[in-house]
Amino acid sequence: MVNFTFHNPTKIEFGNDKEKQIGEHIAAEGINKVLLVYGSERIKKEGLFDTVTASLLENGIEYVELGGIVSNPLLSKVYEGIASAKAHSVEAILSVGGGSVLDSSKAIAAGALYAGDVWDFFTFKSQIEKALPIFDIITLAATGSEMNSTAVVTNETTQQKLFIASPHVYPKVSIINPELQKSVSKEYLVYSAADVIAHSIEGYFTASYHPDIIAAYIEANINTVIKTTEILLADPDDYNARSEFAWAATQALNGTTYLGVEGYSYPNHMIEHSLSALYNVAHGAGLSVIMPAWMKWYVSHNEKQFIRFANTIFAKSSAMEGINTLESWFEKIGTPIRLSQCGIHESEIGTIVENAYENAKHFGIADTYTKEVLAEILVLAL
Amino acid sequence: MVNFTFHNPTKIEFGNDKEKQIGEHIAAEGINKVLLVYGSERIKKEGLFDTVTASLLENGIEYVELGGIVSNPLLSKVYEGIASAKAHSVEAILSVGGGSVLDSSKAIAAGALYAGDVWDFFTFKSQIEKALPIFDIITLAATGSEMNSTAVVTNETTQQKLFIASPHVYPKVSIINPELQKSVSKEYLVYSAADVIAHSIEGYFTASYHPDIIAAYIEANINTVIKTTEILLADPDDYNARSEFAWAATQALNGTTYLGVEGYSYPNHMIEHSLSALYNVAHGAGLSVIMPAWMKWYVSHNEKQFIRFANTIFAKSSAMEGINTLESWFEKIGTPIRLSQCGIHESEIGTIVENAYENAKHFGIADTYTKEVLAEILVLAL
Repeated sequence: MVNFTFHNPTKIEFGNDKEKQIGEHIAAEGINKVLLVYGSERIKKEGLFDTVTASLLENGIEYVELGGIVSNPLLSKVYEGIASAKAHSVEAILSVGGGSVLDSSKAIAAGALYAGDVWDFFTFKSQIEKALPIFDIITLAATGSEMNSTAVVTNETTQQKLFIASPHVYPKVSIINPELQKSVSKEYLVYSAADVIAHSIEGYFTASYHPDIIAAYIEANINTVIKTTEILLADPDDYNARSEFAWAATQALNGTTYLGVEGYSYPNHMIEHSLSALYNVAHGAGLSVIMPAWMKWYVSHNEKQFIRFANTIFAKSSAMEGINTLESWFEKIGTPIRLSQCGIHESEIGTIVENAYENAKHFGIADTYTKEVLAEILVLAL
Repeated sequence: MVNFTFHNPTKIEFGNDKEKQIGEHIAAEGINKVLLVYGSERIKKEGLFDTVTASLLENGIEYVELGGIVSNPLLSKVYEGIASAKAHSVEAILSVGGGSVLDSSKAIAAGALYAGDVWDFFTFKSQIEKALPIFDIITLAATGSEMNSTAVVTNETTQQKLFIASPHVYPKVSIINPELQKSVSKEYLVYSAADVIAHSIEGYFTASYHPDIIAAYIEANINTVIKTTEILLADPDDYNARSEFAWAATQALNGTTYLGVEGYSYPNHMIEHSLSALYNVAHGAGLSVIMPAWMKWYVSHNEKQFIRFANTIFAKSSAMEGINTLESWFEKIGTPIRLSQCGIHESEIGTIVENAYENAKHFGIADTYTKEVLAEILVLAL
């Protein structure tokens, strides 16, 4: 295993009714005023907003609202949050929603203590040196943002979907109540399954050295996602399946599955970010399109690991059978596997390639992912 | 999954040469003076002591030495450490050694800030409310103490081997350099393998509800230990095998394998603690004797999970084949499987039962582990 540092300071509060203690967790840090960030009005209709604000008030915590965060969250909304956080002198950010709400909250938390433009952090022009403390109640299991130090935001002006990564944006306390995730639509459940699988396979296939123990943890996460997605499609109320799905999502991107791994990259995310940035495709949907295509292009680079994947995930013996079975499984659960299912046609490939190539440079993998290669992969996704 | 809180604040520094930065990590916390706790003079002979003290001095950190910690660490030595920590007003404890050294350090760290008798914490008469910060360089992969909040110490006067558990004794920084673990004897390597397997199976078999995802992580750890132990017995210098063994040991008892698990207990540890306390048997050796015996007694209580174990660990189809294969594997690697191999004979069973029954009461499982049951299990270990 290659040398690593691991320090994940997030406190996880997992289970039923945990959201009722959010006020106590915030008050325990001596915080009196928060920016309460959320997405649609769904949390108001379902009562979660009332539960949260009641807990805040009970604990003497004031709040300022920022609603309206959308999937593929937008930089303009982050700016709005930063302005509000500064204007109201909030002491922390409370995110109530899915990964987009939490990612926006992380950007707001860093931006609120920065004199310059928060986008500087995404373009690596500047480094995050501090951030307001972040608390969250995660209502969609997918991104793993609840236990990691990264966030992804789309700049709608430049059409770039970029990320930040800083130890200052680890959430202080994350509340994961699987019960609150029951109301997620079937559509978003299957997109989330694709997202967790994508987080799992990037390092697994691309690493120049991958420890077996880490591969086995990853396979445990993928197998869990496959099994529990099928259970939840049949019965959304299965609490234990919902729990295991949620925990697999958290574990897939909290750092534990990248420890001791050498020389890996995130090509599927890199390409998918272009689909989201250009066409507002749901992140998980874009990933289920890109992954099989990328795998077909990449398989010869690491056939041994693809055979292992085929064996341990699908009990198949060849690399190609593994890829094809994953693709069929995506199709079966109802997440797209072709660009056309996202309304994207052959004529768009040039545009996607240009955008993705900029991402490749940003990710530091433009030597491998030339425009020709990107086009080749995208053609496989037609 | 049942509700849980997970918050593991330990920073892990894993890999080659990491011990050279120990002084920087301590200085970063504003600490000027430490109690340097270690076991035998081995660390002096091998140069580790010089590396560590050089790093301390470079960073302006004074140290007071406390050597001579033994396996199954003794309360008397903990008292000595507490007296020294108080007399020299040290600000932190630095443990350089295996689990016994670190467990003693944790007890010293808590005892140094307590006016009463540190043993009160072990008998649950008093609760740990604070502790000096703990740093460690772990030279034996086995106990998982480097990333958890527990410690086990033997009171040689009362012949009790008991534990403490408190968030205040999580190490602040733990250094795991697999290279430093190469000099561990083959004997201690195989005892350590048994210890990690024991940490893995207690919850796995005894839980009233056990999530599949957690079971899969546990199986990944056990499979890693089995595979890497065999590699290391043949080639102690295999760095990657040493790394994976070390990481499996850490993961097996850092909390992650007990999340969402309901109604579990530690019967194998409970019985083994009596062997260590009464006969100073090496902990791992005691465990490899007790585990197969306990499994044979317990198998009918949870046959389904034993079949899963047999399948996933040894590719066997029946519960008993799984148990027998584990026993044979212990025998093959050279860790004992019978009491007689530890010099303990049938005439001692009554004495062990009395001691273990006190442990059972302490662990809160005396209803199940009556004296009759304990005797039955011990007879299976003859």
